[in-house]
Amino acid sequence: SKSLSYKLMLANSLIHSTDKGIFAMLPIGQRIIDKLIRIIESEFMKIGAQKLEVPILGNKEIWSKSGRWEEMSSEMFKLEDRLKHHFCLQPTAEEMITELVRNFGTLRSTQFPLLIYQSSPKFRDEMNPRFGLLRGKQFLMNDLYSFDVDEKAAKDTYKIVCQTYERIFRHHLKLENLFIVEANPGAMGGSISHEYQLPNSCAEDKVYLCKKCSTAYKFEVGLEAKTDCIACKSSDSLAVVDTIEVGHTFQLGDKYSSVFNATMSDNKTPYYMCCFGIGVTRTVAASIDVLSTSQNAMRLPESISPFKLAVILPNSDSHPNTLFVNSFIHELDQLPTLRNEILVDDRLDKSIGRKLAEMNQLGVPHILVAPGKKYVDFCESPRLEYYRAIPKSDQLLSEGLVSHSQIFQIAHML
Amino acid sequence: SKSLSYKLMLANSLIHSTDKGIFAMLPIGQRIIDKLIRIIESEFMKIGAQKLEVPILGNKEIWSKSGRWEEMSSEMFKLEDRLKHHFCLQPTAEEMITELVRNFGTLRSTQFPLLIYQSSPKFRDEMNPRFGLLRGKQFLMNDLYSFDVDEKAAKDTYKIVCQTYERIFRHHLKLENLFIVEANPGAMGGSISHEYQLPNSCAEDKVYLCKKCSTAYKFEVGLEAKTDCIACKSSDSLAVVDTIEVGHTFQLGDKYSSVFNATMSDNKTPYYMCCFGIGVTRTVAASIDVLSTSQNAMRLPESISPFKLAVILPNSDSHPNTLFVNSFIHELDQLPTLRNEILVDDRLDKSIGRKLAEMNQLGVPHILVAPGKKYVDFCESPRLEYYRAIPKSDQLLSEGLVSHSQIFQIAHML
Repeated sequence: SKSLSYKLMLANSLIHSTDKGIFAMLPIGQRIIDKLIRIIESEFMKIGAQKLEVPILGNKEIWSKSGRWEEMSSEMFKLEDRLKHHFCLQPTAEEMITELVRNFGTLRSTQFPLLIYQSSPKFRDEMNPRFGLLRGKQFLMNDLYSFDVDEKAAKDTYKIVCQTYERIFRHHLKLENLFIVEANPGAMGGSISHEYQLPNSCAEDKVYLCKKCSTAYKFEVGLEAKTDCIACKSSDSLAVVDTIEVGHTFQLGDKYSSVFNATMSDNKTPYYMCCFGIGVTRTVAASIDVLSTSQNAMRLPESISPFKLAVILPNSDSHPNTLFVNSFIHELDQLPTLRNEILVDDRLDKSIGRKLAEMNQLGVPHILVAPGKKYVDFCESPRLEYYRAIPKSDQLLSEGLVSHSQIFQIAHML
Repeated sequence: SKSLSYKLMLANSLIHSTDKGIFAMLPIGQRIIDKLIRIIESEFMKIGAQKLEVPILGNKEIWSKSGRWEEMSSEMFKLEDRLKHHFCLQPTAEEMITELVRNFGTLRSTQFPLLIYQSSPKFRDEMNPRFGLLRGKQFLMNDLYSFDVDEKAAKDTYKIVCQTYERIFRHHLKLENLFIVEANPGAMGGSISHEYQLPNSCAEDKVYLCKKCSTAYKFEVGLEAKTDCIACKSSDSLAVVDTIEVGHTFQLGDKYSSVFNATMSDNKTPYYMCCFGIGVTRTVAASIDVLSTSQNAMRLPESISPFKLAVILPNSDSHPNTLFVNSFIHELDQLPTLRNEILVDDRLDKSIGRKLAEMNQLGVPHILVAPGKKYVDFCESPRLEYYRAIPKSDQLLSEGLVSHSQIFQIAHML
């Protein structure tokens, strides 16, 4: 059984499965991924985080040093090179990043907090890959690592990055139903961790949600059922919501820095580390699940929609209209906000209704339909039908006819 | 023995070796890589190529189908998942891309030429990884694949992409010494192929160069020594130049499309394919080798320099100058061409001379040194020393003192 996002991503040619749990990102899917990465990286630039990229191949030595070569066991893809050296396809990069920072040598006080991140493929040999991009064997993760001189500074850094995460999910992606819950750090180590969860019917995870004050709590399997809300003290107010994790943040402390001797030069104190991860491919799928209501129409956050605007041209090649439409498409394309953001549907062998349905299915948020009839009277100004795709609905909202100047007013607001 | 580019990339913290032939891209190196990818992708957008990304894990079935599972033998990293299915870490993607395009189903005539590309990590289990990024086990390659309906159309497409390649190397990177030589397609298959070679003392490859007319020819090991130039008919005019391959282009014909049944729907004719590759990480290293003359100073094409401008602040925190300098750094940062392109060296514990030497070593093309003395006379306008890093030299060119308005004149031309 496929999840809704999986069905919609296949139907709209965002992805193609090359093997069980392994996906190619097709051009439309790639546009979405690139937009999400740009959002994340532009927010990271504002907090002084620096981009790098560590190798996909991690050697057994560093993974054994932290104890995770054995701990991750069969979930890790392992291989040998021709000289029989053992490597894994890295599922995350605490070991390698800590080892790297140790190699930086003495850092100046002005270099703290040191924030470094990458957006790169990660691997997990899933026993049961499922739900398309929600649980695959290769996935794209943005992972950020912070290094501080003491616990207090690390906690400040943690707070700043968590605020950035909230801005990415709530402000840029407008995912209002995001749950941020304190969680058990588990195998990652450290004391405090938070998970960023979105409602999802695949129920890979669950949270308790207080019906009174909307506080969310981590649902721990095996623990006694919670009923009372700690925040608002209401009793019997907690409901269980099916979710999926799209981000996690950890205060790691010195778990890795002490093992890899990543220490300050003066007193040999290990750095205080935090790590942060956003499942990039998973966030795209989870957003589709949150905002779409049926297989008829995909919905995405407008900021990562593959195109901002679709222009549907008439079927018949009626000369005067084509000239009019082509001229303003060219003008719209000059607007910085619409550069490379317009999908022109010039297929001659499909009806307007069909093309409109396909643009709706793809979830392009703004759609213009060019007039098919010829304007014989040159004093009559051509107008276009304007539609909007509605989030959490599979319908299009007809906004009526708009004139040339109105189109530019709309375009300026996109 | 390390190559010059390898030494310079280590010395300037562009890369860090995590294992033999395996490298992390550190923040400064990552900036360079990101710039080169942006150049390549902006040129590809102009010819209608679409970006996608296929998985790193390729299954044995598709690689056996083309015969390359055995052919590539021990050069391929191979692994199994927990269900004992065999995969490789893909060194290139002809198989997967062709299989993908077959799955697209019937393409409209307006979709040809179909041009798709990716910029992604590729793998090769090198027997003898060496020279840093010039021959590593994991490298970044931009690979483009074209699909056409017949041979003539495929040749036209081939020509257009080759022109784009020339524009990338000669216009954007200003690598005048690029040799484009017809080559033997070898294991890749097809009839015609061209290699893009840069002079390189590592001598991974060689070309014949005519001293009279500058035509270059592929040097084939084992073949009889060439002495006469075919182009200008001069005899004894050919010299051997040590080089390294940074790009290759292939007219593949139907080698892959016939095996994978990627055919036109009407007459079942296999598509005519071409493929094109730029070694992204290798091009960065090879450019450094071409433009640098010693270990004292790295030189890069200006368009991929990690920073366009460095501003060296005085050691002592002299208040009036700090105000003056900070105000114009802020203004310069507002210029679209300098956004996120200025490196401010505000280290207080290093001498101006030392900081200047380090900026030169890093190869920042334009350097401003803020005045250290206080301007007591407020009518006297502060001026800055301006230096330029010279390609193919390890020296800085002193351009003398420049005023506030002159700085903006310079900045506008960057």
